[in-house]
Amino acid sequence: MKKVINNPSDVVEETIEGFLAAYNHSFRKVENVNGITRRNLKDKVGVVIGGGSGHEPLFMGFAGDGLADGVTIGNVFAAPSPNNVQSVAQAVDSGKGVLFVYGNYMGDILNFDMAAELLEMEGIESRTVLVRDDVASAPMERYEDRRGIAGDVFVFKIAGGAAEQGLDLESVAKVTQKASDQTFSIGVALNPGTMPDSGESTFTLADDEIEFGMGIHGEPGVERTKMMTADELTERLMERLLDESKIDSGEEVSVLVNGLGSTTLMELFIVNRKVAQILEDKSITIHDMDVNSYCTTQEMGGLSITLLKLDSELKELYDAPANSPYYKK
Amino acid sequence: MKKVINNPSDVVEETIEGFLAAYNHSFRKVENVNGITRRNLKDKVGVVIGGGSGHEPLFMGFAGDGLADGVTIGNVFAAPSPNNVQSVAQAVDSGKGVLFVYGNYMGDILNFDMAAELLEMEGIESRTVLVRDDVASAPMERYEDRRGIAGDVFVFKIAGGAAEQGLDLESVAKVTQKASDQTFSIGVALNPGTMPDSGESTFTLADDEIEFGMGIHGEPGVERTKMMTADELTERLMERLLDESKIDSGEEVSVLVNGLGSTTLMELFIVNRKVAQILEDKSITIHDMDVNSYCTTQEMGGLSITLLKLDSELKELYDAPANSPYYKK
Repeated sequence: MKKVINNPSDVVEETIEGFLAAYNHSFRKVENVNGITRRNLKDKVGVVIGGGSGHEPLFMGFAGDGLADGVTIGNVFAAPSPNNVQSVAQAVDSGKGVLFVYGNYMGDILNFDMAAELLEMEGIESRTVLVRDDVASAPMERYEDRRGIAGDVFVFKIAGGAAEQGLDLESVAKVTQKASDQTFSIGVALNPGTMPDSGESTFTLADDEIEFGMGIHGEPGVERTKMMTADELTERLMERLLDESKIDSGEEVSVLVNGLGSTTLMELFIVNRKVAQILEDKSITIHDMDVNSYCTTQEMGGLSITLLKLDSELKELYDAPANSPYYKK
Repeated sequence: MKKVINNPSDVVEETIEGFLAAYNHSFRKVENVNGITRRNLKDKVGVVIGGGSGHEPLFMGFAGDGLADGVTIGNVFAAPSPNNVQSVAQAVDSGKGVLFVYGNYMGDILNFDMAAELLEMEGIESRTVLVRDDVASAPMERYEDRRGIAGDVFVFKIAGGAAEQGLDLESVAKVTQKASDQTFSIGVALNPGTMPDSGESTFTLADDEIEFGMGIHGEPGVERTKMMTADELTERLMERLLDESKIDSGEEVSVLVNGLGSTTLMELFIVNRKVAQILEDKSITIHDMDVNSYCTTQEMGGLSITLLKLDSELKELYDAPANSPYYKK
């Protein structure tokens, strides 16, 4: 796979430079580390998101009004260093503390936690909410092992909305944790992406095969099967998602149909059509549907479906204004 | 290439259904044809855009406040029928006439022109502005043969802004024509896309080759060469673009770095970084940069760079508020 890059070791720095060349009016670089913050930081809890690069527009694309204040970015599919996390948190802290929100991966947890300890010694308080939306990554009995995928977006949205309301750190963390607990996703992989540094594929899959539940770094899924129609595929995903989430008739959800890279918006719309039909058939109320490629794995083919189960508190925060170069409400 | 579709003959209808399932609050279907309009149509000139499907989020993603009022959609890479164009125009006309804006392709011209004649017989006045931004598709001496590619976005933006200001049809057409005349693009292809109906590739290219100037339906480009670094590739594109557009030091531009489908946002940012450096080196003022995949060719790999040369009138319209599910200002 041809990649439009220069030196593979420079991709992260150059990605940030290119992002800031376009959106410099709203964001600035954090000195000496791969991180950015909003320019108009407010006197409120700082929301810091991040993780490995290679999933663009995650994570930088979700900094903005009513969203994250700072973003800490690791190498491709690698956690940001403790120093990186710490520097971004320092840059956004207004004295009201920092909420870290990121996907549940061991490397990220180690480095964010170490940063949190260093920050505590400086007198900067922090809390952490992990995103564990991928229902295929572990059964409910091992919920703590579930990975974070595209559901990140909904949890970031709630965190950003709560911080913008001026809630204190404990309260922002509490409602963000609720959002995380109520966010459920499942994906299907069609084709691998390619690592920009090594040129290697993230996994292999036969020409006529797909894999349900594969992770966004190529982690093994739950079932490898033959390619099927969009409707069949969507039914399979939704059946598992509704079963795992226990979301039932009379409840209300926001939906994200997320493309993993090379799957076209045309295909995502075709899936979204079926998602809407299934939810309507089950008398589950659709509050909002978003169809986009927010959480990608390079040019990986496939998609995920995310449901956020709403109560009145989450709905208000979900609907609050938000604006970044790659997301708006 | 696996495609998440059902019956290949249903992809356009199902794409529209999936779009409306998500964005039904803002748009509605035009009865009996593959077209949509905004729900809150105003008493102003109606802007109608369209063309073949398969380029999502073009064209539906560019209907909204300060953008298009109606969108007419053909089959994959095929012009909408005269009846389709006519029906969408009827649906948006408030009595102040309709401006058609679309890329310069023979099939589209035939069908839009036929619709315009039919509309005239009904007393609905229309004007047409063709987008001819692809500088690689024909030399300046044959400007009328140049094809429209991602520059569509800038011309739609200006047309929508002008109509929103309440200008009359003649005036909206005039400033939109100016925008079209001042919009210049060039692309490079890395990998083909796949037709969702036939499963065929849009072109072939060796593993280590790229093609400058290839069109968004696989039309032949101007030079096939070996893969190169992002910086070299961007220099080659910008050299030709600045040469053809005659944009020079002291002038002001808006920039779009557009991905063609499977090229990642990471790569587009790396290109954008170099575009900004080149423009700064030449003392060309950057008014705005947008990095996104607006005009795609299924999962085709590659990108295009578009420059819109601004004067004060175009700048005001460019900066006017605009909001659609896939574009905002």
